Amino acid sequence: MELSLNTATVRKQWDLAQIIDGCVRHGIRGLSPWRDQIALLGLKETKKRVDDAGLTVTGVCRGGFFSDRNWKDDNLRAIEEAHFLRAPALILVVGGMPEGSKDLASARKHVRDCIAEVLPQARQAGVPLAIEPLHPMQVARAVVNTLRQALDLCDELEPGGAQGAPGVGVAVDVYHVWWDPQLATQLARAKGRILGYHICDWLPSTRDLFNDRGMMGDGIIDLPRIRGLVEAAGYRGMQEVEIFSDFDWWKRDPDEVLRTCKERLKVC
Amino acid sequence: MELSLNTATVRKQWDLAQIIDGCVRHGIRGLSPWRDQIALLGLKETKKRVDDAGLTVTGVCRGGFFSDRNWKDDNLRAIEEAHFLRAPALILVVGGMPEGSKDLASARKHVRDCIAEVLPQARQAGVPLAIEPLHPMQVARAVVNTLRQALDLCDELEPGGAQGAPGVGVAVDVYHVWWDPQLATQLARAKGRILGYHICDWLPSTRDLFNDRGMMGDGIIDLPRIRGLVEAAGYRGMQEVEIFSDFDWWKRDPDEVLRTCKERLKVC
Repeated sequence: MELSLNTATVRKQWDLAQIIDGCVRHGIRGLSPWRDQIALLGLKETKKRVDDAGLTVTGVCRGGFFSDRNWKDDNLRAIEEAHFLRAPALILVVGGMPEGSKDLASARKHVRDCIAEVLPQARQAGVPLAIEPLHPMQVARAVVNTLRQALDLCDELEPGGAQGAPGVGVAVDVYHVWWDPQLATQLARAKGRILGYHICDWLPSTRDLFNDRGMMGDGIIDLPRIRGLVEAAGYRGMQEVEIFSDFDWWKRDPDEVLRTCKERLKVC
Repeated sequence: MELSLNTATVRKQWDLAQIIDGCVRHGIRGLSPWRDQIALLGLKETKKRVDDAGLTVTGVCRGGFFSDRNWKDDNLRAIEEAHFLRAPALILVVGGMPEGSKDLASARKHVRDCIAEVLPQARQAGVPLAIEPLHPMQVARAVVNTLRQALDLCDELEPGGAQGAPGVGVAVDVYHVWWDPQLATQLARAKGRILGYHICDWLPSTRDLFNDRGMMGDGIIDLPRIRGLVEAAGYRGMQEVEIFSDFDWWKRDPDEVLRTCKERLKVC
């Protein structure tokens, strides 16, 4: 599997134009940009630079956040942007519970209803929606927390299954799902539904709930095993490195970060 | 459900003798002591003081840590201590992966094998072993991370089911399991297997993976709903408050902490 760079990995050091140049310099051929960075550079300029660099867009981060008041407009815009960039998926981080609520089940139903509401536009634009289960410790950011739950949502939203091109599927980020005793079972079930595969590592000494991800090989995730399961489920895309790292990688020379990402692909 | 105090809740402020006195002062009738505190006070002295205070021991924390070299001796000692204190269960925090390992599946099998090895002694002592699934973010401390996984272990270790007094069961701590989409299903399945019920709250602003638990009512867990599910599964014990809190409750006057625990029982 080839390497794609999720732009969050060096977002503290570089803007999107610099990141695109960096990918070219390091021979990284895939890119998954975040929408705030796209907005800063401009959508058309982003497209032009991505094309000139010969990069493949492997996803756009992110739609979702259905707990926000203007979720619908924002998601429709996100679908358009992903369509314009010819992204194979719009990654959904589904949002948390409304302020003051303790009703997790309702927040989860709300996610299903919201996805159902924008799914026709996503299908029409040819931009599948990739539900990304987030680690249970991040439930305040996203109430979909296991692969099983995400796939249950897919089945509910597309009862016909994932024959042909699915309108909705899942993004599998090892950081969020590696611990799950049901991982192998659910990845097998995900056949035809995997729209993105994100890699990094879990540090046993993790100090922060959001921004202390490890570089591949520095932690305790058996990456080759999970890649094997993802491939067995039919995924043929790139593996996208996404590292949020306040204490380490966001502090380093970004060229060193990209060089390390490429090197470490051999342990993935 | 009556209140029991897990001694971790005020361990930074008081030693075990002071905690026992505090329980008497505040009319708290249950106690779940940690073994390091028992060791400091002495096992016999602990028993004497608990009895004199008229407290019911609701559990002993903790056995497990099967990743340690001397796990067997330590767990056999823990069973003896729990027996001596007439605890209804020994809580197991099962331990993580061996240093340098990325083999989560093997670590999980090791847990099963270790419990099987000490289960005869636990049965003989009349001390059921309570497997406590820990939050997936704490996988480096415990590789059992969902209620389903813990109950699968119970079924494997005691294929006959939980008829009569089980030798092995589960401890349900809301902090570790509240996020789980399978919670209701698994609690229903847990009938006869629930050996402890621990409460606190999940703060949406959680800053630490271990020691930032909230007081009941300060977070977003629907405590009455989970209590209802636990009661429906036949649990008739106390609810045990267990709060690790570096930033807040461990810094407060412990009498205020105990008073607050009692008050907040009305939102549980």
